[in-house]
Amino acid sequence: MAKYAIGVDFGSLSARALVAEIGTGRELASSAMEYPHAIMDRALPDGVRLKPDWALQHPQDYLDCLKAVIPRAMDRAGIHPRDVVGLGLDITACTMLPIDEAGVPLCFADEWKDDPYAYVKLWKHHAAQPQADRINALARERGEKFLDRFGGKVSSEWMLPKILETLEQNPPLYKAAHRFIEAGDWLVLMLTGNERRALGLAGYKALWNARTGYPSKSFLKALHPGLENLVEEKLNPHVYPLGSCAGGITREGAVLTGLMPGTPVAVCNIDAHVSFPSIGRAQAGDLLMVMGTSVCHIMVSRESLDVPGLSGRVEDSVIPGLVGYEANQVMGDHYNWLVDNCVPENYAGEAREKGLSLHDLLTRKAAALKVGESGLLALDWWNGNRSVLVDGQLSGLMLGMTLQTRPEELYRALVEATAFGSRMIHETMEKGGIPIENLIACGGIALKNPFVMQVYADVLGKEIRVVRSAQAPALCSAMFGAVAAGRKGGGYDSIGEASREMGGLLPVCYVPDPDRSALYDELYAEFAALHDFFGRGGNDVMKRLKAMKARVAE
Amino acid sequence: MAKYAIGVDFGSLSARALVAEIGTGRELASSAMEYPHAIMDRALPDGVRLKPDWALQHPQDYLDCLKAVIPRAMDRAGIHPRDVVGLGLDITACTMLPIDEAGVPLCFADEWKDDPYAYVKLWKHHAAQPQADRINALARERGEKFLDRFGGKVSSEWMLPKILETLEQNPPLYKAAHRFIEAGDWLVLMLTGNERRALGLAGYKALWNARTGYPSKSFLKALHPGLENLVEEKLNPHVYPLGSCAGGITREGAVLTGLMPGTPVAVCNIDAHVSFPSIGRAQAGDLLMVMGTSVCHIMVSRESLDVPGLSGRVEDSVIPGLVGYEANQVMGDHYNWLVDNCVPENYAGEAREKGLSLHDLLTRKAAALKVGESGLLALDWWNGNRSVLVDGQLSGLMLGMTLQTRPEELYRALVEATAFGSRMIHETMEKGGIPIENLIACGGIALKNPFVMQVYADVLGKEIRVVRSAQAPALCSAMFGAVAAGRKGGGYDSIGEASREMGGLLPVCYVPDPDRSALYDELYAEFAALHDFFGRGGNDVMKRLKAMKARVAE
Repeated sequence: MAKYAIGVDFGSLSARALVAEIGTGRELASSAMEYPHAIMDRALPDGVRLKPDWALQHPQDYLDCLKAVIPRAMDRAGIHPRDVVGLGLDITACTMLPIDEAGVPLCFADEWKDDPYAYVKLWKHHAAQPQADRINALARERGEKFLDRFGGKVSSEWMLPKILETLEQNPPLYKAAHRFIEAGDWLVLMLTGNERRALGLAGYKALWNARTGYPSKSFLKALHPGLENLVEEKLNPHVYPLGSCAGGITREGAVLTGLMPGTPVAVCNIDAHVSFPSIGRAQAGDLLMVMGTSVCHIMVSRESLDVPGLSGRVEDSVIPGLVGYEANQVMGDHYNWLVDNCVPENYAGEAREKGLSLHDLLTRKAAALKVGESGLLALDWWNGNRSVLVDGQLSGLMLGMTLQTRPEELYRALVEATAFGSRMIHETMEKGGIPIENLIACGGIALKNPFVMQVYADVLGKEIRVVRSAQAPALCSAMFGAVAAGRKGGGYDSIGEASREMGGLLPVCYVPDPDRSALYDELYAEFAALHDFFGRGGNDVMKRLKAMKARVAE
Repeated sequence: MAKYAIGVDFGSLSARALVAEIGTGRELASSAMEYPHAIMDRALPDGVRLKPDWALQHPQDYLDCLKAVIPRAMDRAGIHPRDVVGLGLDITACTMLPIDEAGVPLCFADEWKDDPYAYVKLWKHHAAQPQADRINALARERGEKFLDRFGGKVSSEWMLPKILETLEQNPPLYKAAHRFIEAGDWLVLMLTGNERRALGLAGYKALWNARTGYPSKSFLKALHPGLENLVEEKLNPHVYPLGSCAGGITREGAVLTGLMPGTPVAVCNIDAHVSFPSIGRAQAGDLLMVMGTSVCHIMVSRESLDVPGLSGRVEDSVIPGLVGYEANQVMGDHYNWLVDNCVPENYAGEAREKGLSLHDLLTRKAAALKVGESGLLALDWWNGNRSVLVDGQLSGLMLGMTLQTRPEELYRALVEATAFGSRMIHETMEKGGIPIENLIACGGIALKNPFVMQVYADVLGKEIRVVRSAQAPALCSAMFGAVAAGRKGGGYDSIGEASREMGGLLPVCYVPDPDRSALYDELYAEFAALHDFFGRGGNDVMKRLKAMKARVAE
């Protein structure tokens, strides 16, 4: 009798459950649901306005999704809950919220429901940049070692800046919070009744390290007197390794998900990292690009080196026994922005006539252009720079426009900009002593957009392979669910085993074209010069404009 | 019995005839027609493709417009041709074409009709930049005085680079051309049978000067051996002053226009300069901004100084007895580009619902933003930089974009960029010793868009008055027609007299707001830094991108 594992992938806008077969990785069925409140970046549901750089989510959305997608996926797969050996989750991070002693999000309480600080701060909430700046300055001054693991910079997107922002801006809410917790760890708590903070989340997003734990009391106290006992009072010193079992599903969790009480649940994974085992093997030197609204570059290596500008280095965080490196970059969000804001009505009409999405129409038109034909160049910083410069105060740049510039040229320039940004990340890794042997991609763009993939191959000057699964995060979450069950429970004893049986690549390879690569080398040199000029202090105009924006918004 | 003058204004996309009453300036009627071929920047009518930076027009369009608009305007005004005392024309410049010995454009001949070089090179034809670069280098090397009158730089838009481009790229056509002539002088030739090159056109666009004439034979020979006798062979050494009569309308001209044979025709004016008398007085220190697709800054002063970066200084060219200065900048074309290329379908729908044009909708939304709220900053170089830097190889820049940036923010940033560009021009004038006493504006934008005008007042930190006439160029061309007729012919003996009786201002004044001006001072400092960095050699990326664009287009 076949057995199955279920993975649920919580993205930035929706959650998706997948039923995968143990032993083959066959994907029987899936079900997805968008978050009813999506991303709140202008106002709360009741109209309370948000400041610039805010990005919140509603935790009820996650529960509503769980309740909808797991039963529907099992139903579509035609399987019985007793044949599910384990459940795994992955989610964006650091995506964190304050909860009360019972684990209830503060925003569920009448007292706090009008307070933006009571909601989930999504990973791309960027309002804690001043706090991140002060954390960085103090850590440098004190020579804190944890800085080195993160390329010398704490991002405003991480746990500590987000907590400090709340403490400074909203002391009563800070006080009322029993815990600040990653949304993924909170979902595991909701399902199992156990607070089991995951190694990946703590290691990449909360400055935790296996040897030294969280930042020291003395550092936290120096940062803010109220933070001295942060770890004991508002976090949790215990951290659980990759693939470990957080516990069995409670009765309440069973009602929520339709699964059997007691079904093993894996500790949570970061949505971007979780996909690594989808490649079907685990080899030092592999770099996986998870391509969607963002692209997350996940690399495993035997080397454990501090590389300035990389977002994180955490042992055992991706594949046990190897060192995981992470770098991040906004990708598809750039293309979506253009499609939503900068494509004229006649293009929309043309797309409808041809039965294409606007993305597909622009892709077709952009693919017909030669390298360099548009004369455009962009910096992919529409949502700041998350790796190499690690600076949320940077913003987008495009130059080379003429009165003849057309939307598909802008589109292509944004695609190229993200590819240049990826090359900058890879070169930073390699200069830092982490050699990249194999490039693999997964995610919607990797599977659906050969034009973007070819631009990537041409810009990077390397072959790129593509993961077979169209739902790699959910598939890998299912693998981790199977590992939580263990071989005795019908699953696997290690993620390596699960990966070899359930992962694999497509028979597709994007090969760089030497002529296009040579032109891209020229354009990349221009990109790198602008990157360093605007990103490393040549002209801090972007930061001053953001500061003015914040000032006039008050 | 009332008498009238007719002015015909040839813009970049259409021609407009106006019937104005002598003595009052009352505008009885007008008629406009778009050029059937508009601007050819991608292909000739028969499909022959054009290279990047080309911009051509079809001379038949000008004749077709003359034939349509003059009779229609007289008809609408209900006047008889014998009551028309004179006719004046103005047109874009340098907008030039090759003609044969009979005055027929080469592109009318079967032999040449597939040859792009046989058509009218519109002012914004920018393919002669390499020739302009060489002219500038040689003139600097030889210490040619004419350079100083044009701020140290000959623009690629002017007559000599455009002629040299033809000579180098297409020697047979150069040889076949009996004359290279401004389209405006050619129209005067068509109407009167007389080749009467206008002082304004020659002085601003062909390096001519009252004392020294055209550039010397030795300079022209050094530039290209074939150019030594350019002036005698392909131009014409005789130049006629502002307001002089080119002759009476011929029988053929009368058939074309419906006017009486013998009706006096003024020598042609540049479309941007012609409007100056519309302000109703002529005072040293007045600066008129003619706001449309471009903004032309026309200034009259008692000072005759060389100002680096201004497009031209020509004595007696705007108001006899004063020195005329000109500076240029692309304006509304930026906004049009955005509306045509970067505004999404839902905005188009909203505009229709509200009964607004897309421009009006964006203006409303942009007007609701605070200064600095968008975080955006742009350089207004979508069509190169025409004054201060005088460099057609520069291109547009926009920075500060985030994933929340909306179309109205981009629109406002472009409006602000053009205002910053204007401020750069005015500061260059004042630093050069030409004090600006009064700012006056005319043109469609000045009359129809209070939002743009207020941004201008806030950015420039000065009050701005607005010309009464909505058709200032055509009205002033009519004034010059009246001056060609002379007082004895029912018109005026000087443009000063005509201006006092036929021109005037609206009872409107845009006053800068001190708070907004202070914020704009900050933003302007950022604009100026980027302007100098990208425009004065800090990073020549725009030029390298244009060079690559040309290279891959081959």
